[in-house]
Amino acid sequence: MAISLESIADADVAETYGDAFPNSRKVYVSGTRGIRVPFREIRLSGGEPPLRVYDTSGPRSHDIREGLPELRADWIHSRGDVSEVARSYRAPDGAARAEIPAALQRGALRGTSCVTQMHYARRGEITPEMEFVALREGLPATLVRDEVARGRAIIPANVNHPELEPMIIGRAFKVKVNANIGNSAIRSSIDDEVEKLRWATLWGADTVMDLSTGRDIHETREWIIRNSAVPIGTVPIYQALEKVGGVPEELTWELYRDTLIEQAEQGVDYFTVHAGVLLRYVPMTANRMTGIVSRGGSIIAKWCLSHHKESFLYTHFREICEIMRAYDVSFSLGDGLRPGSIYDANDEAQFAELRTQGELNRIAWEFDVQTMNEGPGHVPMHLIQENMDKQLEWCQEAPFYTLGPLTTDIAPGYDHITSAIGAAQIGWYGTAMLCYVTPKEHLGLPNRDDVKVGVIAYRIAAHAADIAKGHPRAREWDDALSKARFEFRWRDQFNLALDPVTALAYHDETLPADGAKVAHFCSMCGPKFCSMKITQDVRDYAASIEAGMREKSEEFRATGGEIYVTADVAELTGVES
Amino acid sequence: MAISLESIADADVAETYGDAFPNSRKVYVSGTRGIRVPFREIRLSGGEPPLRVYDTSGPRSHDIREGLPELRADWIHSRGDVSEVARSYRAPDGAARAEIPAALQRGALRGTSCVTQMHYARRGEITPEMEFVALREGLPATLVRDEVARGRAIIPANVNHPELEPMIIGRAFKVKVNANIGNSAIRSSIDDEVEKLRWATLWGADTVMDLSTGRDIHETREWIIRNSAVPIGTVPIYQALEKVGGVPEELTWELYRDTLIEQAEQGVDYFTVHAGVLLRYVPMTANRMTGIVSRGGSIIAKWCLSHHKESFLYTHFREICEIMRAYDVSFSLGDGLRPGSIYDANDEAQFAELRTQGELNRIAWEFDVQTMNEGPGHVPMHLIQENMDKQLEWCQEAPFYTLGPLTTDIAPGYDHITSAIGAAQIGWYGTAMLCYVTPKEHLGLPNRDDVKVGVIAYRIAAHAADIAKGHPRAREWDDALSKARFEFRWRDQFNLALDPVTALAYHDETLPADGAKVAHFCSMCGPKFCSMKITQDVRDYAASIEAGMREKSEEFRATGGEIYVTADVAELTGVES
Repeated sequence: MAISLESIADADVAETYGDAFPNSRKVYVSGTRGIRVPFREIRLSGGEPPLRVYDTSGPRSHDIREGLPELRADWIHSRGDVSEVARSYRAPDGAARAEIPAALQRGALRGTSCVTQMHYARRGEITPEMEFVALREGLPATLVRDEVARGRAIIPANVNHPELEPMIIGRAFKVKVNANIGNSAIRSSIDDEVEKLRWATLWGADTVMDLSTGRDIHETREWIIRNSAVPIGTVPIYQALEKVGGVPEELTWELYRDTLIEQAEQGVDYFTVHAGVLLRYVPMTANRMTGIVSRGGSIIAKWCLSHHKESFLYTHFREICEIMRAYDVSFSLGDGLRPGSIYDANDEAQFAELRTQGELNRIAWEFDVQTMNEGPGHVPMHLIQENMDKQLEWCQEAPFYTLGPLTTDIAPGYDHITSAIGAAQIGWYGTAMLCYVTPKEHLGLPNRDDVKVGVIAYRIAAHAADIAKGHPRAREWDDALSKARFEFRWRDQFNLALDPVTALAYHDETLPADGAKVAHFCSMCGPKFCSMKITQDVRDYAASIEAGMREKSEEFRATGGEIYVTADVAELTGVES
Repeated sequence: MAISLESIADADVAETYGDAFPNSRKVYVSGTRGIRVPFREIRLSGGEPPLRVYDTSGPRSHDIREGLPELRADWIHSRGDVSEVARSYRAPDGAARAEIPAALQRGALRGTSCVTQMHYARRGEITPEMEFVALREGLPATLVRDEVARGRAIIPANVNHPELEPMIIGRAFKVKVNANIGNSAIRSSIDDEVEKLRWATLWGADTVMDLSTGRDIHETREWIIRNSAVPIGTVPIYQALEKVGGVPEELTWELYRDTLIEQAEQGVDYFTVHAGVLLRYVPMTANRMTGIVSRGGSIIAKWCLSHHKESFLYTHFREICEIMRAYDVSFSLGDGLRPGSIYDANDEAQFAELRTQGELNRIAWEFDVQTMNEGPGHVPMHLIQENMDKQLEWCQEAPFYTLGPLTTDIAPGYDHITSAIGAAQIGWYGTAMLCYVTPKEHLGLPNRDDVKVGVIAYRIAAHAADIAKGHPRAREWDDALSKARFEFRWRDQFNLALDPVTALAYHDETLPADGAKVAHFCSMCGPKFCSMKITQDVRDYAASIEAGMREKSEEFRATGGEIYVTADVAELTGVES
């Protein structure tokens, strides 16, 4: 397959990132079959080549009432294995529902046979989705195919989500970040949620989970999917529970099944299914500090106990697989018994469920359904590795997808930090995707600022993990930024930052003048104490030593301080020094 | 030695923490010899016992123009090994200097023989400082003494800093956090710096380094030390450089020596000395991405090259030890060649200096001078362990004191997070003290908010490390908070947080009403989806199963939802749900 990494469609460079990324433009790398993969290209000064970085932002100039272009439509239809079906969802009588604009209203596709990427991969095919992912990661398409076939990676890509720009979740690839959005009974607005989607992906979220539990769940999700270039995940039991008025005991398999189909027809790319929470595991949580902290897990536990029956998610698991394979919805097998406190980490309940997750992986793979496993939670650093080791062994190296883990319980308000520590560590050990935690965790629903801070904390964790695990292209970004830093290319340093505007603003708090952007110091140390400036002097001198010119010592002493022209401090700050 | 952990001086409970820690009060635990060790006691509801946590805040109700009470004065004088000497410092002619109030003006003490805690420990003595530390850590005083004697821990405690509440830095104890303050040529105010000291220690800084490089260095330091209950560290070469107009080549041993004595007489508890930067190591930095990033390291490198001589810090190291032992100033042997980028991590220059640090440790210990080693810097996660392993081996287990390390270079503006990841990890591996990094790192001088965020990020890292390395008392804090969380004691959860006011504010953004503080849910999930509430229902039911009452199933279904009285959502939020 011929892949050109260099051909850029110039017509697309006008598309921008708003104010978020100065000096960045979107470029496309072309593959075969008309495939065009977006990157963000950061233009630098000083003769440095531009840096291309992975781009999750999606098309951004469209009207959200029209939805995104259907990038995958031809790919899906040309395989000839789907047929159009009428949407099964009917709005309940009575209650006023939110509007879905005509342009966002779609029919649905359903596979006439198995339509999963795993199915194609096992047949040896490299789908356009796989090629897209390979170009995006800078890795061979055969590796993508083989990892998907083996179950070590997934490409969540519902046939009803043609707007998707495909991405891959697996240990051999860049560590990914998921951002949760969604309303709750306390806070609710479709506009807010679509904006959070756009905002989270602008800053680098690789997938987004819509965890809405308030009203208009169906309509909110429709708006989100039609405007999302990243995979959308959901926890279908939340909507099922809404349908029975919030009473877990009233849930039935039939109602849950219909909810799966409803959401699969909308285009949800992965479902969290807490099928590993078994009746016999529930008593294992009795002596925990914080019991069951997964919403889905607690709902299932209550259902199981009330009926004194095994969970319908478990007993009907093969039927669920039959549904998933007809749309290519991937499993995210939930960890309903994950620990909610340091005290409960790595206990019997947690690991019992993990073993069952492994059993369910094997069943899903019988159906060629793509699968990943969710993981903790709250885990102290010294117990993190055990989670990864057991998941790799018991779950046959299916991708691991963890929430944090949080490494201490004592910092509500800062759990993006308590958890970024654990997330970076478990990402290094092999976790494929990290579910972000915002500063509002445990306290309330995140707002726009919280979403941004959460995504950036997790981009840091994921990138630190990529470097540590040796992803071949991870370090070029660090190197470009550090080179800019050392050469006092301040604007390049800001523009290369994960959050350029914040970096610039912090710098300008003390040195706002334009001249400071070329000055060989900042306010942290001031002009006489800038180690980088002194080092450059030293380096010039060391070069002269290497040339055997030690007699230059006196000359250096006379001129060393003046090698660089530094502006007057007062002029840059307006403050007398 | 009789130690009572329970006796609290009720007279002291009135002392408060301002608005920072609601429901906290300062209590004292008494030892022998009139020793009283402060703790912060957090009072809880629901019949829970109060939690006592380590307290770095120091006395807070005094006038900063009067300075702190001289807690250690009697201890120091009763040893009979110091004599009063006149201060050697004379303000330079000409320039107007900042005022030092009369109440802050002191003479100086100098040992008539060695007065270091290591010296006493090696003689088998348990000093009041050691006993204070033992009570503070909840560990045996003999362990404190033995670790200090062995060089595995230090108690930085200059005889001219009687205001100090002693603390210990060593692998067997709680991981400590240092906060840097200090003006630069760009920003400068004594009031600002004293306030930063009080602010940093309020939030949990265990030591503070005054890195001032602007004007009034001597006077700023005097104000800081007289008002500090935590050890103060400095980098004396900064002031020495100011004395020669900022020209490194003009530095001399005599001028540096006099600066050490000046600062030792003021009461500085530890000196960063970059004596491991040798002439032959400087060329090893020539091919680095970011050269030399330590200010002290670059100054010494420039001096060495200009004179083509070995550093006077190295050649006069034994004379430096003679000074340090006469005041009990501890060494913090600087890592002048630490890596400033991921690219440069663990290179030849860095490890060459580390080996020399080990050599210098052994010399310092000949003089009974307490010593720790500074470490990196920028290091990716997979290379962090090697730093710790080599330091333990080459430096004979002297305490390691690291800056971060930062695990990626791409997030200026968020380097408190990039570095908290590395700091937590290296703390777990055995690093004794973590030097904080604020969000302004690489961009400018931190302000008050940055100092707070930096300290809290590092308290998180240190505490996560304490849990992971199994400090016997670390987890009780997590357990208390998680229990409060599970029992919906919201105010207790906030009050137990590292930053209670922020936790409360985040919660109240969506649920401001008083009733929400006892509600069995928050806005993240809303009342029907609170897993903790459902779990409590489940737990009650599971208890009934254990009692063999399975027939209660129907009864539970009828009443389970009403076990807890939850307030109406609209009432709590003012928003219709």
